[in-house]
Amino acid sequence: MPALSYGQYSLVFNMLSFSVAAMFGAFAFFAMSQKLIGAKYRASMVVSSVVVLIAGYHYYRIMGSWEGAYHLVDGAYVPSGMPFNSAYRYVDWILTVPLLLVELVLVLGLEKGKTGPMLTKLVTAAVLMIALGYPGEISIDPTTRHIWGALSSIPFVYILYVLWTQLHGATRGSTAKVMSLFESARRVLLVTWGFYPIAYLIGTFGGAHSASAAVGVQVAYSVADVTAKALFGGIIFAIAYEKSRADGSLPSLHG
Amino acid sequence: MPALSYGQYSLVFNMLSFSVAAMFGAFAFFAMSQKLIGAKYRASMVVSSVVVLIAGYHYYRIMGSWEGAYHLVDGAYVPSGMPFNSAYRYVDWILTVPLLLVELVLVLGLEKGKTGPMLTKLVTAAVLMIALGYPGEISIDPTTRHIWGALSSIPFVYILYVLWTQLHGATRGSTAKVMSLFESARRVLLVTWGFYPIAYLIGTFGGAHSASAAVGVQVAYSVADVTAKALFGGIIFAIAYEKSRADGSLPSLHG
Repeated sequence: MPALSYGQYSLVFNMLSFSVAAMFGAFAFFAMSQKLIGAKYRASMVVSSVVVLIAGYHYYRIMGSWEGAYHLVDGAYVPSGMPFNSAYRYVDWILTVPLLLVELVLVLGLEKGKTGPMLTKLVTAAVLMIALGYPGEISIDPTTRHIWGALSSIPFVYILYVLWTQLHGATRGSTAKVMSLFESARRVLLVTWGFYPIAYLIGTFGGAHSASAAVGVQVAYSVADVTAKALFGGIIFAIAYEKSRADGSLPSLHG
Repeated sequence: MPALSYGQYSLVFNMLSFSVAAMFGAFAFFAMSQKLIGAKYRASMVVSSVVVLIAGYHYYRIMGSWEGAYHLVDGAYVPSGMPFNSAYRYVDWILTVPLLLVELVLVLGLEKGKTGPMLTKLVTAAVLMIALGYPGEISIDPTTRHIWGALSSIPFVYILYVLWTQLHGATRGSTAKVMSLFESARRVLLVTWGFYPIAYLIGTFGGAHSASAAVGVQVAYSVADVTAKALFGGIIFAIAYEKSRADGSLPSLHG
């Protein structure tokens, strides 16, 4: 771990705390949102709330690990000798990325018999993507990072391609509002997932001893996670709400 | 406790943290899943959520005990002198294994009058199995471990035999999907419960001072618990969902 200025240390710490708050806040919203939508879209919000609960736990642990990894000495932060545990992120992803894909595919409402095979393909690719990324993440050798990063990119691009085309197909036969929400979901998906390779590349090209690279990696991963989990779950909720309204399954006004 | 390399210590620590996240995530899912299935299968998911909540608490404590039992000295982990509390696992099992059996027997939907006697037999065997295993677990003498391990195996094999045959009988008269889910449940049950004696034997044959045995025991028990509680609960949910669909008790579209 590189030594950090007071501002650099605090930026990461506050970003991590922001993520804890956003994830647990999103958990409360998604857990309670089931009363606001039709019964057949609730499974999607149940899964969304599990995703942000698990992520909130991990951000809480990451924040503690960040605190433990530094000591304040003469107004600057120097490594305490305790390692910063970067495995928390990968443990989080191995649990939450498959669930994120379940949440998204459930709200697509594919034809009967198509949901299972679609999820098998996507979840397998997600596990491969995360498992192949980890050996690169914990390495400080640029060549090792490039090789594992490139391997991890193959399932990454595959998942994005499948989701991008599926999200387009799913909009057929929907109301204008649902169609435009699916379009937002497509764009948010592309932008937020794009942050992950950027964060990885900051770690590769910034070098192992660069303070700004260490800060950049943590900030970029936090932004990506909050957007991909909390904000994306919000869009899923909006889609479920508009679909419930369109098919008349909104809970009764006087229920 | 044996001294551990950084990688060995971290593997166990991250596996324990993974288990905490998986158990609490499963708790949120099982607790909320009751809105997604028919009323008569809900008791099973209530019990499932109690199981993973208790397990999540114990994994959180085990993680803390593991942290306290080691100090980082010159890049390696040496025993701190604080004992690692292996009783947490047995306290967990004495509470959760009887509940797991209740959860499974409830979803079987046995004929009237058969559920009570079946549960009495299975729960008695489970308590015996755990109580007989503990004196072996905390011993470092191989002979003592063998004797208690062998005694504990008798109720263990009995429980597996009863469940294996019951899970077969229960599939009669079900839809093809419910039958294939019960078949998965049988296989998962056998594989995951098989991990427990393997973990015990790693502790016996690895020796009390072997680092790899200490790591192997913790990893194997964690994998077994996550699969037997969180993943198995997921299969129970799938069975309850498909049974609700088959008997028309799925929550109404306009509920």
